[in-house]
Amino acid sequence: MGAIDLSDEPKNRITVDIYGQQYTIIGEENASHIRAVAAIVDEKMREINKRNPLLDTTKLAVLTAVNAVHDYMKLKEEMEQQTENQKDERKW
Amino acid sequence: MGAIDLSDEPKNRITVDIYGQQYTIIGEENASHIRAVAAIVDEKMREINKRNPLLDTTKLAVLTAVNAVHDYMKLKEEMEQQTENQKDERKW
Repeated sequence: MGAIDLSDEPKNRITVDIYGQQYTIIGEENASHIRAVAAIVDEKMREINKRNPLLDTTKLAVLTAVNAVHDYMKLKEEMEQQTENQKDERKW
Repeated sequence: MGAIDLSDEPKNRITVDIYGQQYTIIGEENASHIRAVAAIVDEKMREINKRNPLLDTTKLAVLTAVNAVHDYMKLKEEMEQQTENQKDERKW
């Protein structure tokens, strides 16, 4: 079973199931947040598997991480754009 | 080699190296965006490996995806909070 610290001050240990494997997540976040994150990863892996059924689980997981980081960067750009727009609004 | 569609209308094929493996990413995004995403995933995997040296590559990749989705959700919450604050500002 894999365990990961999501923060520097671990508090909770939550066991989740992702793509048929159990993982223990250690962090300050509450159980429902961790479970929601795990469910998204599980869903993304199944989605990518549907489109690329020949990929092994490691590659599937790496590409899921690529997908998640891509989403993060897009959201960050959107957020920065929003902040820029507000600055412009205030100028006028 | 694994290939993934990041969008429904694939245009570019970029080959990147993540954790010693090559992946072909297919999508509308430009090469520099894809390379930046791949570099973040590679870095996150190495970071998690340092903290959990006994994990196999699949688990490492899954936990990297968990970490990325966690970051995404945090940023989304932050963004929603920002939008809420603006609404409140406008009310007054």
